[in-house]
Amino acid sequence: MYVRDLTEDDLLSVITPHLPHAEGVIVPSGDDCAVIPAPDGRYAVSTDMLVEGHHFRRDWSSGTDVGWRAAMQNLADAAAMGAMPRTVVVSMGLPGNLPVSWLEGFARGLAEACASTGCGVDGGDLVASETLTVSVTVMGDLERREPRLRSAARPGQALIHCGVLGRGCAGLKLLERGYTRETGVLPPTQTGLIDDFLRPKPPLAQALDACRENRIGAMMDVSDGLIRDARRMAKASNVWIDIRSSYLEQHVEVLIPVARRLGLSDPWEWAMKAVLTGGEDHGFLATLERPAERAWGPHTLALPEGFSRIGEVREAHAGGFITVDGRTVEYGGGWDHFQG
Amino acid sequence: MYVRDLTEDDLLSVITPHLPHAEGVIVPSGDDCAVIPAPDGRYAVSTDMLVEGHHFRRDWSSGTDVGWRAAMQNLADAAAMGAMPRTVVVSMGLPGNLPVSWLEGFARGLAEACASTGCGVDGGDLVASETLTVSVTVMGDLERREPRLRSAARPGQALIHCGVLGRGCAGLKLLERGYTRETGVLPPTQTGLIDDFLRPKPPLAQALDACRENRIGAMMDVSDGLIRDARRMAKASNVWIDIRSSYLEQHVEVLIPVARRLGLSDPWEWAMKAVLTGGEDHGFLATLERPAERAWGPHTLALPEGFSRIGEVREAHAGGFITVDGRTVEYGGGWDHFQG
Repeated sequence: MYVRDLTEDDLLSVITPHLPHAEGVIVPSGDDCAVIPAPDGRYAVSTDMLVEGHHFRRDWSSGTDVGWRAAMQNLADAAAMGAMPRTVVVSMGLPGNLPVSWLEGFARGLAEACASTGCGVDGGDLVASETLTVSVTVMGDLERREPRLRSAARPGQALIHCGVLGRGCAGLKLLERGYTRETGVLPPTQTGLIDDFLRPKPPLAQALDACRENRIGAMMDVSDGLIRDARRMAKASNVWIDIRSSYLEQHVEVLIPVARRLGLSDPWEWAMKAVLTGGEDHGFLATLERPAERAWGPHTLALPEGFSRIGEVREAHAGGFITVDGRTVEYGGGWDHFQG
Repeated sequence: MYVRDLTEDDLLSVITPHLPHAEGVIVPSGDDCAVIPAPDGRYAVSTDMLVEGHHFRRDWSSGTDVGWRAAMQNLADAAAMGAMPRTVVVSMGLPGNLPVSWLEGFARGLAEACASTGCGVDGGDLVASETLTVSVTVMGDLERREPRLRSAARPGQALIHCGVLGRGCAGLKLLERGYTRETGVLPPTQTGLIDDFLRPKPPLAQALDACRENRIGAMMDVSDGLIRDARRMAKASNVWIDIRSSYLEQHVEVLIPVARRLGLSDPWEWAMKAVLTGGEDHGFLATLERPAERAWGPHTLALPEGFSRIGEVREAHAGGFITVDGRTVEYGGGWDHFQG
């Protein structure tokens, strides 16, 4: 059964049974608008669009994968602001030849990702399109905290990160070479990379817990690659961000066997580049205030749970910039949707 | 210059100078999320997607028209809930061969429509797509009022409407026959119909003023045709909604010259059908409490400004339904995106 065989109301009746409502929702979806509580008198909002052939491929990703990813990359944007994701609304452009089972899988993936953090799905729109398109808008609750801005990095703070780096990039590379989660050729450590690409798992709870501590300066979601996103933070904050490559070894090591499997000439170099510039990992980059007294050193700085130190924030005198190990970055700037 | 010649940051710099911010915005767009005030502790939210070839044609609509329409149909959803639209976020899927001037026009139309009601544009996403796609999410402020639900129609209330009916449908028909706003063949009354199709002008302020009066029962945006949307209200409220065709004559008369121009065999019949089933007008359908004392009649019922009476709400005994002049409706159910 395909989308073209059903009416909009029929399609809605396939999707809606899977979808959770926001906690305390005042008017659920089905009217002109849903009405959602904003207990502290503010809400954080962000939106993202995914397009088949650009952000996902149906031969790689199931509907459930795409629903999961569409939700997660938005939930990560809310958490990166320090906001608990409360609800999403979802619009879809559907080709007539899309199997209805794909759409149902999408709804399941979306619901699963949202339910993992207590978020609802409280509105949407289904329209016909030649190109399978998903647009998600997330709204979050700051729970009386100050929003965590990318412009709040200050010299003297430590640069910290929570989540994976380079795994999405490596998973994509394996898929491009014809490997899948199912072929049985890859060891579990490597099918795990493919799974992380298809279903990113941003550590939402750890990012939000860190925000509750009040030592976080800047925070942002790393979706376009560490260097590119760290550069955005440096420019917004007008600081020099120095990433220390030795702090990234744990991320690099995991990827070296993949580089060997792919027959790449310099496995370490490729793995480090994947860690520094690979996108779609959706970890959290933040800066951390040091204690006021100067009795600290690299090993005594207490980090929020799940975060690792990856560099330093220093003073910049003429606009923000980034370095790796104190040197200007040779690698490209990461992912651009129009010129990627 | 085309979209493919620029980076995402370049494209953003074309758009953003045109866009207003929400009043009192706490964090403007540019971070992971915008942060918007919700002074009464709630917000209304709705989302819509427009796809080229399905919801607009570039040979009929300029970028400015599409930006205007994309905003207006969302602003109407907020107002139909009784919520003052405060901000929208906008995602776009852009083909590489889209002229950048089209995108700039879109931003201007979007901004113009939003500015007309003091609404901001506080976030978005630009991605590459083979199909030109626009997704808008609106958030509104209920200003301490109760939301106006489509399930709140009650027997004894008057059915009232504010805005135009059938004009979008007639404008579309003229475009399909090759007429445009520019050809100079049509009298201004008929180019006005084309303009209303390309740039719907929902009476947002009148709908919101009506909500402030507290005599409104149900309210909804009429986007898919009067009969289809009135049926949704009847079903949600479990009432019988009877539309009186004589109350629609003012809408029908305007369209009869169009029917004549198009050489249709029964101009009145076609015009009435356009009024009853034509979509995309974005007027407001509502029900109105009568005064408690029974000293009223059809001519003494004081209507909110801009609203006309178009029928009655009566008791239903086995599920909501609609009639026109007491008779079951012969016309089709209006527009369906997938089977239209």
